[in-house]
Amino acid sequence: MAGSGVFEEIFDGEVFKYYVDGEWRKSSSGKSVAIVNPTTRKTQYRVQACTQEEVNKAIDLAKVAQKSWARTPLWKRAELLHRAAAILKEHKAPIAECLVKEIAKPAKDAVTEVVRSGDLVSYTAEEGVRILGEGKFLVSDSFPGNERSKYCLTSKIPLGVILAIPPFNYPVNLAVSKIGPALIAGNALVLKPPTQGAVAALHMVHCFHLAGFPKGLISCITGKGSEIGDFLTMHPGINCISFTGGDTGVAISKKAGMVPLQMELGGKDACIVLEDADLDLVASNIVKGGFSYSGQRCTAVKVVLVMESVADALVEKVNAKVAKLSVGAPEEDSDITPVVSESSANFIEGLVVDAKEKGATFCQEYKREGNLIWPLLLDNVRPDMRIAWEEPFGPVLPVIRISSVDEGIHHCNASNFGLQGCVFTKDINKAMMISDAMETGTVQINSAPARGPDHFPFQGIKDSGIGSQGITNSINMMTKIKSTVINLPSPTYTMG
Amino acid sequence: MAGSGVFEEIFDGEVFKYYVDGEWRKSSSGKSVAIVNPTTRKTQYRVQACTQEEVNKAIDLAKVAQKSWARTPLWKRAELLHRAAAILKEHKAPIAECLVKEIAKPAKDAVTEVVRSGDLVSYTAEEGVRILGEGKFLVSDSFPGNERSKYCLTSKIPLGVILAIPPFNYPVNLAVSKIGPALIAGNALVLKPPTQGAVAALHMVHCFHLAGFPKGLISCITGKGSEIGDFLTMHPGINCISFTGGDTGVAISKKAGMVPLQMELGGKDACIVLEDADLDLVASNIVKGGFSYSGQRCTAVKVVLVMESVADALVEKVNAKVAKLSVGAPEEDSDITPVVSESSANFIEGLVVDAKEKGATFCQEYKREGNLIWPLLLDNVRPDMRIAWEEPFGPVLPVIRISSVDEGIHHCNASNFGLQGCVFTKDINKAMMISDAMETGTVQINSAPARGPDHFPFQGIKDSGIGSQGITNSINMMTKIKSTVINLPSPTYTMG
Amino acid sequence: MAGSGVFEEIFDGEVFKYYVDGEWRKSSSGKSVAIVNPTTRKTQYRVQACTQEEVNKAIDLAKVAQKSWARTPLWKRAELLHRAAAILKEHKAPIAECLVKEIAKPAKDAVTEVVRSGDLVSYTAEEGVRILGEGKFLVSDSFPGNERSKYCLTSKIPLGVILAIPPFNYPVNLAVSKIGPALIAGNALVLKPPTQGAVAALHMVHCFHLAGFPKGLISCITGKGSEIGDFLTMHPGINCISFTGGDTGVAISKKAGMVPLQMELGGKDACIVLEDADLDLVASNIVKGGFSYSGQRCTAVKVVLVMESVADALVEKVNAKVAKLSVGAPEEDSDITPVVSESSANFIEGLVVDAKEKGATFCQEYKREGNLIWPLLLDNVRPDMRIAWEEPFGPVLPVIRISSVDEGIHHCNASNFGLQGCVFTKDINKAMMISDAMETGTVQINSAPARGPDHFPFQGIKDSGIGSQGITNSINMMTKIKSTVINLPSPTYTMG
Amino acid sequence: MAGSGVFEEIFDGEVFKYYVDGEWRKSSSGKSVAIVNPTTRKTQYRVQACTQEEVNKAIDLAKVAQKSWARTPLWKRAELLHRAAAILKEHKAPIAECLVKEIAKPAKDAVTEVVRSGDLVSYTAEEGVRILGEGKFLVSDSFPGNERSKYCLTSKIPLGVILAIPPFNYPVNLAVSKIGPALIAGNALVLKPPTQGAVAALHMVHCFHLAGFPKGLISCITGKGSEIGDFLTMHPGINCISFTGGDTGVAISKKAGMVPLQMELGGKDACIVLEDADLDLVASNIVKGGFSYSGQRCTAVKVVLVMESVADALVEKVNAKVAKLSVGAPEEDSDITPVVSESSANFIEGLVVDAKEKGATFCQEYKREGNLIWPLLLDNVRPDMRIAWEEPFGPVLPVIRISSVDEGIHHCNASNFGLQGCVFTKDINKAMMISDAMETGTVQINSAPARGPDHFPFQGIKDSGIGSQGITNSINMMTKIKSTVINLPSPTYTMG
Repeated sequence: MAGSGVFEEIFDGEVFKYYVDGEWRKSSSGKSVAIVNPTTRKTQYRVQACTQEEVNKAIDLAKVAQKSWARTPLWKRAELLHRAAAILKEHKAPIAECLVKEIAKPAKDAVTEVVRSGDLVSYTAEEGVRILGEGKFLVSDSFPGNERSKYCLTSKIPLGVILAIPPFNYPVNLAVSKIGPALIAGNALVLKPPTQGAVAALHMVHCFHLAGFPKGLISCITGKGSEIGDFLTMHPGINCISFTGGDTGVAISKKAGMVPLQMELGGKDACIVLEDADLDLVASNIVKGGFSYSGQRCTAVKVVLVMESVADALVEKVNAKVAKLSVGAPEEDSDITPVVSESSANFIEGLVVDAKEKGATFCQEYKREGNLIWPLLLDNVRPDMRIAWEEPFGPVLPVIRISSVDEGIHHCNASNFGLQGCVFTKDINKAMMISDAMETGTVQINSAPARGPDHFPFQGIKDSGIGSQGITNSINMMTKIKSTVINLPSPTYTMG
Repeated sequence: MAGSGVFEEIFDGEVFKYYVDGEWRKSSSGKSVAIVNPTTRKTQYRVQACTQEEVNKAIDLAKVAQKSWARTPLWKRAELLHRAAAILKEHKAPIAECLVKEIAKPAKDAVTEVVRSGDLVSYTAEEGVRILGEGKFLVSDSFPGNERSKYCLTSKIPLGVILAIPPFNYPVNLAVSKIGPALIAGNALVLKPPTQGAVAALHMVHCFHLAGFPKGLISCITGKGSEIGDFLTMHPGINCISFTGGDTGVAISKKAGMVPLQMELGGKDACIVLEDADLDLVASNIVKGGFSYSGQRCTAVKVVLVMESVADALVEKVNAKVAKLSVGAPEEDSDITPVVSESSANFIEGLVVDAKEKGATFCQEYKREGNLIWPLLLDNVRPDMRIAWEEPFGPVLPVIRISSVDEGIHHCNASNFGLQGCVFTKDINKAMMISDAMETGTVQINSAPARGPDHFPFQGIKDSGIGSQGITNSINMMTKIKSTVINLPSPTYTMG
Repeated sequence: MAGSGVFEEIFDGEVFKYYVDGEWRKSSSGKSVAIVNPTTRKTQYRVQACTQEEVNKAIDLAKVAQKSWARTPLWKRAELLHRAAAILKEHKAPIAECLVKEIAKPAKDAVTEVVRSGDLVSYTAEEGVRILGEGKFLVSDSFPGNERSKYCLTSKIPLGVILAIPPFNYPVNLAVSKIGPALIAGNALVLKPPTQGAVAALHMVHCFHLAGFPKGLISCITGKGSEIGDFLTMHPGINCISFTGGDTGVAISKKAGMVPLQMELGGKDACIVLEDADLDLVASNIVKGGFSYSGQRCTAVKVVLVMESVADALVEKVNAKVAKLSVGAPEEDSDITPVVSESSANFIEGLVVDAKEKGATFCQEYKREGNLIWPLLLDNVRPDMRIAWEEPFGPVLPVIRISSVDEGIHHCNASNFGLQGCVFTKDINKAMMISDAMETGTVQINSAPARGPDHFPFQGIKDSGIGSQGITNSINMMTKIKSTVINLPSPTYTMG
Repeated sequence: MAGSGVFEEIFDGEVFKYYVDGEWRKSSSGKSVAIVNPTTRKTQYRVQACTQEEVNKAIDLAKVAQKSWARTPLWKRAELLHRAAAILKEHKAPIAECLVKEIAKPAKDAVTEVVRSGDLVSYTAEEGVRILGEGKFLVSDSFPGNERSKYCLTSKIPLGVILAIPPFNYPVNLAVSKIGPALIAGNALVLKPPTQGAVAALHMVHCFHLAGFPKGLISCITGKGSEIGDFLTMHPGINCISFTGGDTGVAISKKAGMVPLQMELGGKDACIVLEDADLDLVASNIVKGGFSYSGQRCTAVKVVLVMESVADALVEKVNAKVAKLSVGAPEEDSDITPVVSESSANFIEGLVVDAKEKGATFCQEYKREGNLIWPLLLDNVRPDMRIAWEEPFGPVLPVIRISSVDEGIHHCNASNFGLQGCVFTKDINKAMMISDAMETGTVQINSAPARGPDHFPFQGIKDSGIGSQGITNSINMMTKIKSTVINLPSPTYTMG
């Protein structure tokens, strides 16, 4: 159970502690932040409201720990990460429990998130050994006018202290996808978990603690965004920000100094359906892609753009599947569970009301109880409706009927987002050419958008983000290049 | 005109000279080899019948020249290659003329071969600068148990002396695709051109001579295979053999010593046609792929495997196009020209007769005049006919009707060859899965097999060859790795 | 001569025009900006003071032109860049003349800058063909739990519109090092040249115009920083900023939105001299590294950290060489020429005065006439003097005597800058270990810091910048990743 | 104990069985081969004398098993290898025991060999996941004249059936360094262990069996070289030969057909010692490099080339260390143990006698008992002595005094071998330039030659081998390239 067993030391019985200097501590603020269970709408847990002083301390310690960590053999760094991964998987139950209570994630999905996180950490360890262990060896005589008298060795070296800010919807997985790369690359890590999901994140951090990472290298700071949000992101001791979330990311980008940014923000992933598509495949992908975790995924299908001639058939198939979705509590592993907060539910309702007023076809009746919103497909959505462009982050999915492929591509590209998109067609030529034309970070051919497998590149363009993720790219982003040039007194060429 | 103008010095009025030590010379053998024009069937040119002593001399000089060439800055090597490319393109007319006379290549195609060769040399130069100019920089602490006290620098260095043996069908292009990589990588080069095509090759070599490459670095040895063939391929001074041709390659492989082999031998490229294929596209690809240069291409379509249900329609479309092919002399730019030799024509005829006897359907009447064979499509070919498996290297193309995709794949994979194959279908899933299943070096989806563009990898498997070509891969194959390990007295980690 | 001959159209007789939409235009502002000749301290040239409206127009046109440029074959993009490079080299004389007049660059160095820029553009073209032409092909079954049913193709694609802001000291070379990568990668380019150097830059841009790039793809906006500086860097239409210069870069970073930044700012490159160093080699590198172009180079040697025991000998050798430096007008190819502006000269003087007051040893008498400052070596500089830490960007070089290697490393790492550094020692172990310990983007062993050869990575850390340059890295930085994932209905494995 | 416990099933009480089709079997030949313990000179073990029929069977089964193994997800292949590695390490004791008895390897080194082999297998698994999981995605418009209408996907695919022939000196480690790469790359594997070391190899293979690899994928054939040697290496079912050993490799190369060869043969690794070298470091490296495992290592220091001026001092230091070497039985962990066979001891003695006759200085008395030869340093060796050029593969090390660096390089390069070499000097310039000049696969600066760490490239040139090893390179060598080209009907460019 959360906060018990090996996790006992992270909890004082009332408030979960924060992690700094290799220890679990209570904040000197004496204050805490409440975490409301989306299902019960009551306070489930409390975490420390850390102070700016405590942030400073964590970053100072990180700086020191990082220098020594950067001098640790790669295989030893990997060994510790493998150990953390194993501990994480071993303790999947209590961590998954937090996910159920904090973010109403269906019980099985919550377990999957933790297990997948362990796999990710292990894969990251081995990938990092290779990325960090290999640089380039360049010679000077490639460039006109030069003899071969300069040998350039390039290394990838750590950036320093990484600030990781994951979102509420995958507070464990999207935390380790930042922590793993940061650590194997030789960086220190300051984690600012989302409020909803913070307790799961603290448990996860404890697994790294148990694995035996050096003191100070990892810290986990909880608290109020108003108090420590900007303070963290604008802190001169932070050398890189890896953020996953919403609009806040754009604001952070504008405030942050000269540090590498890895931002994965919102999306409005379009699903273009052509006349020759396998409609059963499409329907199951739309339901899975649009309604999993109640649509609270950055790569959820967020608008369906279907050719008029097959629209009726597709909508019917989707509706049949929507009708089978179970709605209820995450503990019961319902398909649709309460959205993360009341304000989120209100926002979604706003989009629904707007669509209603402007004449969208409701395939199901709109129904809401507290934060729980029943799945809803809106047909005949038109570009003048807000839901054609905005991201509900809830179980409400608009269908726009198109009369040409170009119309679909145009709608997709008119979005200010550019995370992923998908196209369903059997035709190889259309598949490739539409994929090339869609201006998003990734296009899925014949499948719903998806972040994984985790070693694939993952990136948003336009307002959907900056930098590329996926294990390999994240590790690379958390390094910088250093060159050593050996200057020789006369030209020399390697013979053999 | 061949042997005149800037090419005057390569010709003594009767016999073309061979090239060694930066000079054009007559062989001490006093003998020459006749080159028979496939169209006239009369001796067109004569080349030197070099002796084993002359081979020894060329290789000795190559060894010396190579050491100094390997110490030439990469950009200077590239500069010389760019110059050779420009000279080659400038003199495309006389070289193309040789191709017309020696191998009956249609006039326009002959010019294209030379121009494309110039582009290839330039591209190779720039590619090589990058491949040779960059090695790896590895650290020791990637591997368990090691501290970071060893820095390993890996370089790509030349192999030494490369023996290049191109085939008759592209005696210029398939020569430079070996010469360019060999030279930019810092190797010396001994060229043994095919008899048919030798004079074109000598002209091409002269362009490299005019570009100003160091004496001895390049040599071009003509002569009788019986005299100098095995002598060259088994010569201890040769460090790599790059051969394109037929079965001889297998024999060379068995005789050659411990040297890297790059072999591109025959093929029996299958063209699998599915029911949903665009039959017009297929037909034009079959005609282009099967009958260009009278089928004398390693990547020619050599067997069509078409689904029964569309076979009639396809055959009709192909026949309509075959009917429009012009047949005659290469000077008139005919589509179909005489095959390279009488023995080749006889071999083709043997396959045709066998097919006739075993009941193949002749879509056209079989017609032959001297070496000139009219284009012929054989329908309803069955696996018991020789032409189902053997490579005619002429304008005769078998069609096998299949009743399932698996049957097509099975036929393709039952071949002892594995050069290329192609599949025509609009279906993305079938396209990818059939491509994966065909056991050939390359599979073309919706196009006939093709060697180019020249920077794409190009390789045969099974009896079709060993090693991969294409500009990048050829350069890599003509290098070896050398490592330098800096051992430090104590661990050191790069900070920044 | 500047503004004449082929350059006639860029000049209206009084004010140089700006470049937009494939044309040379006068600003609607009716205003101009004066460029003062550092030597004469009189207005040499005038350029347009563009308006924000004109900036908007340029960026709008760039957006449109970029879409079509991104659909141009790579080899055609390269062809245009090769043409621009040739034109640039052909017109080196008038461009070099501008450099002499605008930034007082010694005449020969000015010519070298232009020629080297042409080489850089050509090399960039070929490099870009390779970088943009090759992506990765990833399969899903690398990651635990996945079958091979997803094929991921990753491409590097353009960012969009790049804003290039080069500094005054290499207004041509540091412009093309941004323009070349931007264009070959398929981006549009807006150039904001430095005021001093703007006219040279306009001439250079005209060479690209003459090469025939599409209208709107390239624009060059001149004007007052106060009017269009922030407007450009904060413009939502800009997708990447590549800036070389001083502190302004940090400010830009803080203001800029979520766009990739390539910043190369100041440096305080240290030269650590060990007891076993070849002092003649050191002295010549210090003089060349410290006083070339009067020290106005980001990679100038900016502080010498020499072991006490060899300090006297080294200082003596350096002084002997300093004594031979010619001081005067750039037209006469003097070694030391006037610094770029009076304010710069005043700033340098401030550092000198401070050092004087705090007791530094003046190896030469301090001498200044207008912007012309005589070369000055300051011995026995101590950490309490400003010049120990600040960047004079002038011909004044401090020497700090150290008693241990660690002291030298410590001083180097205590700087807020981290561009390059160098260490002189014969000892391989010390060379590698000190190089690893110095926290700078590059360490030169046994040579002065240097930006080139241009294909080597080049980067500053800490306040010296973000991102890595050098041709390869710049091209990469000006691209983003897009993935296409082909999802197959069942697992498939490539056979052969 | 060997052949007991989990290893019981590999032993019938008298003769060790061979492994085929997932089972341990007795040969139908009814014959066995005796393995003589080098220390006792008595038969220690017996292994099956397999027949050609049994070879055929193993290869047939391998062909079938490989096709299905090539369709196994990469992570599952890796999982099995990790399991085998763990089992191998778990059973290090009985395997090490075999090494002691079969090849007289000192007890501790024998354990180290097994443990290091486990690490190698695990590292190989992860490396292979990455190498096999990533191909290239190339576009057609890089090459002049092409639009972007062809997308080329290149995969690395298995070669088929790999024949692995490791040598007696590392029968476990040099077997797994072939098995690991072969398997992770999707190949089947036929192992022919050396006679001496066969039983250790059989135990090792059993660990792979216990890990659960598919039946038929791995087989281990023991027997007489005269019966099955050529039969195996010339077998048409073998698609690659990876051989480590002596001259036999050259013979195999000449007989083998058109298959990739990875050969690591003998060496005569030179150790060049300069005047400024750290002589204590040199002496310890010479003793470790020259006498470890009684000099029976391909990368042993095999000739010392020392500058005359420091020769006396060096020889003295080496002698002091040689005097401390313990000589005796491997079970007692002696430094010097009996060489592998009587014929080997006789060969070594031949070299010693020749050196004696020609006047070499014996730093120690020559002493031999059975196969046990006392360590011997021969000073003042001259080029006319056999030991200056031949490889003793025993504890006898020649010292040649040189009067210039060039003389040392010349001697090194005059060898027909080119495995590794080393140079001892503190001078960075000399170190790099001598390393470049030495014509060997690897040059170690300031350390004795060494095969590891195992991820570093490892290769011999000239008669020392072909192909490059080290984990990464071995995996690459055991794959071939297959391309899939998607041909699109019109150009398409990826936008974003």
